[in-house]
Amino acid sequence: MALLVQKYGGTSVGSIERIEAVADKVVAYKDQGNDMVIVVSAMSGETNRLVALAQEISPQASGRELDVLMTTGEQVTIALLAMALEKRGYAAKSYTGGQAKIVTDNNHNKARIKSIDHQNIQRDLDAGRIIVVAGFQGVDEESNITTLGRGGSDTTGVALAAALKADECQIFTDVDGVYTTDPRVEPEARRLITITYEEMLEMASLGSKVLQIRAVEFAQKYAVPLRVLSSFEEGEGTLITTDYETDKTMEQALISGIAFNRDEAQLTINGVSDTPGVAYQILGPISDANIEVDMILQNVGADGSTDFTFTVHRNDYETAMASLEKTANQLKAREVRGNNRIVKISLVGVGMRSHAGIASRMFEILAREGINILMISTSEIKISVLVDEKYLELGVRALHEGFDLKSE
Amino acid sequence: MALLVQKYGGTSVGSIERIEAVADKVVAYKDQGNDMVIVVSAMSGETNRLVALAQEISPQASGRELDVLMTTGEQVTIALLAMALEKRGYAAKSYTGGQAKIVTDNNHNKARIKSIDHQNIQRDLDAGRIIVVAGFQGVDEESNITTLGRGGSDTTGVALAAALKADECQIFTDVDGVYTTDPRVEPEARRLITITYEEMLEMASLGSKVLQIRAVEFAQKYAVPLRVLSSFEEGEGTLITTDYETDKTMEQALISGIAFNRDEAQLTINGVSDTPGVAYQILGPISDANIEVDMILQNVGADGSTDFTFTVHRNDYETAMASLEKTANQLKAREVRGNNRIVKISLVGVGMRSHAGIASRMFEILAREGINILMISTSEIKISVLVDEKYLELGVRALHEGFDLKSE
Repeated sequence: MALLVQKYGGTSVGSIERIEAVADKVVAYKDQGNDMVIVVSAMSGETNRLVALAQEISPQASGRELDVLMTTGEQVTIALLAMALEKRGYAAKSYTGGQAKIVTDNNHNKARIKSIDHQNIQRDLDAGRIIVVAGFQGVDEESNITTLGRGGSDTTGVALAAALKADECQIFTDVDGVYTTDPRVEPEARRLITITYEEMLEMASLGSKVLQIRAVEFAQKYAVPLRVLSSFEEGEGTLITTDYETDKTMEQALISGIAFNRDEAQLTINGVSDTPGVAYQILGPISDANIEVDMILQNVGADGSTDFTFTVHRNDYETAMASLEKTANQLKAREVRGNNRIVKISLVGVGMRSHAGIASRMFEILAREGINILMISTSEIKISVLVDEKYLELGVRALHEGFDLKSE
Repeated sequence: MALLVQKYGGTSVGSIERIEAVADKVVAYKDQGNDMVIVVSAMSGETNRLVALAQEISPQASGRELDVLMTTGEQVTIALLAMALEKRGYAAKSYTGGQAKIVTDNNHNKARIKSIDHQNIQRDLDAGRIIVVAGFQGVDEESNITTLGRGGSDTTGVALAAALKADECQIFTDVDGVYTTDPRVEPEARRLITITYEEMLEMASLGSKVLQIRAVEFAQKYAVPLRVLSSFEEGEGTLITTDYETDKTMEQALISGIAFNRDEAQLTINGVSDTPGVAYQILGPISDANIEVDMILQNVGADGSTDFTFTVHRNDYETAMASLEKTANQLKAREVRGNNRIVKISLVGVGMRSHAGIASRMFEILAREGINILMISTSEIKISVLVDEKYLELGVRALHEGFDLKSE
């Protein structure tokens, strides 16, 4: 018998039939003797319908009123799921974010959870009720309705699991777990049984869309075991936890997965004089334009001048290039170059920490396939390389094979 | 400068265009220097859409979860109207029933308001904000969401007006006021400038659909001046108030209006022995079947036996007849008769109190037209007669003419 927090996303509750299917799933867990807290999103399509209504009135609608509008989406789902559970003869009770006392700051549309007073939910759990909580929403300290931003239902689930000291937070989604890499690129990709929070964070930040980064960070901070499972198929999914907690550590592979990101663009400014503050002069205007910079590389050239390279999201390429050209004029740089047809491929694995030679083996595998590396960046558990976009599939498959990640 | 509470129903906010039109109307009142509190219903169609979703899951959905579901309807409207007001450059703030601290009992789907803590709204009004409140909803003392039942938005408006000591509660609807009678029956019907609460209550209970009875009762109890106006046309509408408050009292007509009700059915049991308790023996089974009885008449016949007649809603006719036939057997009654092709026509007016002869004049007018009266009932400010349904239009028009109610 355990206390489980389960989160079902918009696709999983996208129709009455699917809500009924979720209810069947939930009562099966309840029948096994578990205490159940269910977090749901708005039915798929509902959020877009509400956004369209707001847009029709004003593209500049205030954050406060947008939140009042958008939160009706999950409120519909909690009522319908609670009804479906009651129909099956189970005591159920729905909670809006406010009723669940999920208190956030007052940053409308992207609020952060400050506290959860879980007393009422705990009392209802003790009385044998199944709890259904609206994801993605809370209230600020003055009872204004807030939202955690899109995808914030994962965060609601993890935060509730932490507050209730749940045994597991289970995120039901349309994939059946976390894979060594995207199966659409490498059909032999393998579902991972476990992965660490750190690895999952790297995977998520590198473009794996399975989980929201904030939810994983939250889970790590409060040591909430997090499991990703499919709403539509049976299976164990992937458990995300600390590396030392799992008994799989002994046989932990060096590499957990290969992530990639297609949305990269690279900009280079050549022949800038190597004086203090030059990096700030180059990147200041970029960050002032609210463009996020990912990889940064600075080389001192033979003549004592500097070459400076960085990457941005492909959508920001034009704006960043315009800004950089202006800077180049001011700095009397020799040249500005750019490339928005590049991708980033990353190896992720906590095993890297204790094993040297991962990077050189990666470079060797890529070289064998004739793939030129444009840029490299490393962290403690990740090595990323930038390559021409035409090499994406080839590179991912070669690394997947080379690091022996495929299914048995 | 006044404090106005305005209520706009589902048709008035039934589309984005209509919400924009309401916003235009509201800012015009605001520009005249009024403090504005706006109560809105769900967009027309939305309530039915939500009911259909619930029905699909369970026709026996619990009241609590139905209320969670249904209240999303008004929550959408308050957000959209607040956005439309903000777009026009006005500070606006939406309030759900819970945020407005409209506390009700816990009778889900038909809750009654217990208290309103209007401090927050008053503070926002003082800061110059236009307040937009979700009608029809509140919370019980444990923060469960409740609804006041269909049409309850009128009650929300009146209750807020009472709490805030507003100068007037204005109900915007699809008619431009209260008429001497239904203009579809008598084209010369005249809009009333004022009418008393008592008269309005009689009109409403007799089938005039302009206002909810509960809202009028509430307004009378707290002496809130209530005005009915059109959402779509300009005009003063009809002011509902106490008779002594209006300076129109002097020239108050004897009769304010003629109401009628098409949904009547009459049942008679003849030749019952006139013993104590016979009325209870007849009506007990009817009320046990949850059938509401309207007019009741008991006559002692020549032979000492009793004839007993009563009316019910036409929808309940078959059930009531079956029950009455069973009773007739037990009581060895001579005969049971029924008629479900009858209507009720009523004269309403506080002027009746001080003027004798209204009833006889009414009967005279009907007799002149050859209309046979099947049953009569009177109250202090109302005389109702039951007639064959084919005489409805003729009777209404003759009385409208005879009591000189038509437009100048």
